[in-house]
Amino acid sequence: MLYCGVCHSDIHIGKGELGDVQFPFVGGHELLGKVVEVGEGVTKFKVGDICAVGCFVESCMTCEMCKVGDEQYCHNGMTGTYNSDKKYGLALGNKEVKTRGGYSGSHTVHENYIIKIPDGMDLEKTAPILCAGITMYDPLRHWGYTETKGKTVGIVGVGGLGTMGIKLAAAMGHRVIAISTSAKKEAIAKEKGATDFCVTSDPESLAKYAGQCDLILNTVSANHDANLYMGLTAKNGVLVQLGLVTQPHTVSQLPLMFGRKSLAGSLIGGIAPTQECIDFCFKHKVYPDCETITADKLNWAWEQLEKGGNSAGIRYVIDIKASLAGDFVPK
Amino acid sequence: MLYCGVCHSDIHIGKGELGDVQFPFVGGHELLGKVVEVGEGVTKFKVGDICAVGCFVESCMTCEMCKVGDEQYCHNGMTGTYNSDKKYGLALGNKEVKTRGGYSGSHTVHENYIIKIPDGMDLEKTAPILCAGITMYDPLRHWGYTETKGKTVGIVGVGGLGTMGIKLAAAMGHRVIAISTSAKKEAIAKEKGATDFCVTSDPESLAKYAGQCDLILNTVSANHDANLYMGLTAKNGVLVQLGLVTQPHTVSQLPLMFGRKSLAGSLIGGIAPTQECIDFCFKHKVYPDCETITADKLNWAWEQLEKGGNSAGIRYVIDIKASLAGDFVPK
Repeated sequence: MLYCGVCHSDIHIGKGELGDVQFPFVGGHELLGKVVEVGEGVTKFKVGDICAVGCFVESCMTCEMCKVGDEQYCHNGMTGTYNSDKKYGLALGNKEVKTRGGYSGSHTVHENYIIKIPDGMDLEKTAPILCAGITMYDPLRHWGYTETKGKTVGIVGVGGLGTMGIKLAAAMGHRVIAISTSAKKEAIAKEKGATDFCVTSDPESLAKYAGQCDLILNTVSANHDANLYMGLTAKNGVLVQLGLVTQPHTVSQLPLMFGRKSLAGSLIGGIAPTQECIDFCFKHKVYPDCETITADKLNWAWEQLEKGGNSAGIRYVIDIKASLAGDFVPK
Repeated sequence: MLYCGVCHSDIHIGKGELGDVQFPFVGGHELLGKVVEVGEGVTKFKVGDICAVGCFVESCMTCEMCKVGDEQYCHNGMTGTYNSDKKYGLALGNKEVKTRGGYSGSHTVHENYIIKIPDGMDLEKTAPILCAGITMYDPLRHWGYTETKGKTVGIVGVGGLGTMGIKLAAAMGHRVIAISTSAKKEAIAKEKGATDFCVTSDPESLAKYAGQCDLILNTVSANHDANLYMGLTAKNGVLVQLGLVTQPHTVSQLPLMFGRKSLAGSLIGGIAPTQECIDFCFKHKVYPDCETITADKLNWAWEQLEKGGNSAGIRYVIDIKASLAGDFVPK
C-alpha cells in the first residue's frame, strides 16, 4: 500500500451510522499500491505495477449488472471494501471477519476489482479518484457527457465531490454552473473551473440560471428540496442525486412532464468506468485537491471532516509508507 | 376533415378543468383529413394527400427544442390545436379567437405541423394515434426502445393510452408487463399483446415482478404513489409518468441511487417522432381500438369517457363526412 484516501463514508460506517459495524474496523476505500505478489492465473497485473482499488472488492460476476460493467449495482450485492460480508470467494480470509479497508500496510484483491494506474500519474493525489472521482465521472459518462461537448452541467455543492465534478465536467468541454447555498464558495468554484455560479439562497440568482442545466450532479447529502434544483434543470435534463439523503423528496409531476425531465440517482461506478475515469484524469491532469497526512493524524482528519473542515473540497490522503516508517504503527 | 378522435383531454379542457376556456369551444386534437387546397410556397403536401394533425399547430421554430424536433417542449410555448392563443402567425384567423380543434368540417394548418398518412392506412382507426399513439411512442423512442429489442416494458393502466402502449412495445419486440390495480384487466391486456400481468393490489404479484421493468410507461392520471411502480422498475430503469397528476409524489432517494433509477415525465411528441410513429403503426398494423360515431353522438361519447366507459381502451372517433351528410350540422 502506498496511499489511502479518507472518505466521509469511512466515518459514517466506522461510527455505525449506516448499520452495524464489526470491530476491529479498518476503513478506507480509496486504495493505491504497488503489486508485490500475484496469484496463480493472474493475467492483468504483474509485480511492480502501480494499481488501485475502490469501494468494492467482489461481486457475483454473473448477473446482468456485472456483465454490463455496473458491478456496483450487482443483483446479488457487491462486497464493500470494508465492513462487508465476504460472499463470492474472491475476498479471501476468515469468512467470519468482514472485509477490512485501505488504512493498512497491504491488501489482497482479486484482479477483476483492481484498476491500472498509468505511468507518470501523480500518485499522492490519485487515491480519492477511486471514490470521489468515479462518483462524479460515472453519471457524466452514463448520461452521455463523455461523448459530447458544450453542454451545461450544474454541480450542486462545492465540497470534495463537487470540486471533482467541476474539474471533470470542465475538462470534458462543458460549461459548468457551480450551485451552492453560500455565496462564499464562488471564488473556489471558479478556481476549479466553473464558469458560472448560482447561489440558491438568492432568488435573482435562481431566476438567472432557471432551466439552464442539461445535467445536474447534486452532491448534497443533507435533507433538501430537490424541486429547487429541478427548476435549474433544462428541458430534457436530468437531475442526478448522489448523496445518502434519507428523507424522501416531494416531487411535482407536471414540471417533469412539461420538460421531459428526470430525477435520478447514481452510486460510485463499475470497474471499467473507473479505469476510464483514471485514464481520463491522467490525460487531462484532473486531480482532487489533497492534503497528505500520516496515519497518526487520522483521528484529526476525521474530526476535520465531521466539522466540515474540508469545505474547500480537500481530501485527506494517508501516506502509508511514511506512516509505517514512523513510530505510529508497530513493525 | 375525414375523422377526428375524441380525447379525454377535450373534456377536461372544454369544461374548464385545466384553465379558462373560450366559447364557442371546438375540441379535437386527433385530426385526419384530405388536402383540398395548398397555400403559396407549400412544398410538403399537394391536393389529394391524406394527412393528419395532432395536439399543436404552431411553435416558435427557432428555439433549441424546436430545432431538435421536440416542438411540444418549445421554449416559447407551442400553440395547442384548440383553446390556445395564436402566437407565431402560423395559425391563421382572428387573433382574439383562440384556436379551434378538429370537431369541424375543415381545418387550415401550416405544413410544418402536418403528418403524412401512408397509402393504405386504415383511416377510420388512425386519428387517435396523433395523441394516444404518440404519447406512448415518444418515450419508447426517447429512451432507446425503438433501437433495441428484448427489453421488458411495463405499462401501467389498461385504458386508451395503455392498450396503445402494450401494442407498440410488443410490436417493437419487447416483453410487455401490463400493470393494473384490477385483476379484471388481465384478459384484455394479454389480448393486446402483454405477455405478463401485474396486479398492484396483490402483494404476491408485486413481489413476482419486482425490479423487472427496464422502462415503465405510467398512464395513471389520478393521484397515486409512484414508489409502488419504482419497485417494479429494474436497475438502470426509467419510470415515465404520463398523466396530468397534480398531487406531488413522495420519492425516496436511496432506491434511485442504489439502482441508478430515474423518475421522468413525458408529454405527447414532436412532429418528426409523430411521423415516425404513424409510419411504424402502418408498417406493424398497430391501431387503437376505435368506435366510430357521428357528431350527434358526441355528448354521449363524452359521458361515456367521463364515467369510465372506455375502460377497455376504446377511443371514440367522429366520422366527419358521415356527420356532415346527416341532419346534425347545418349545411
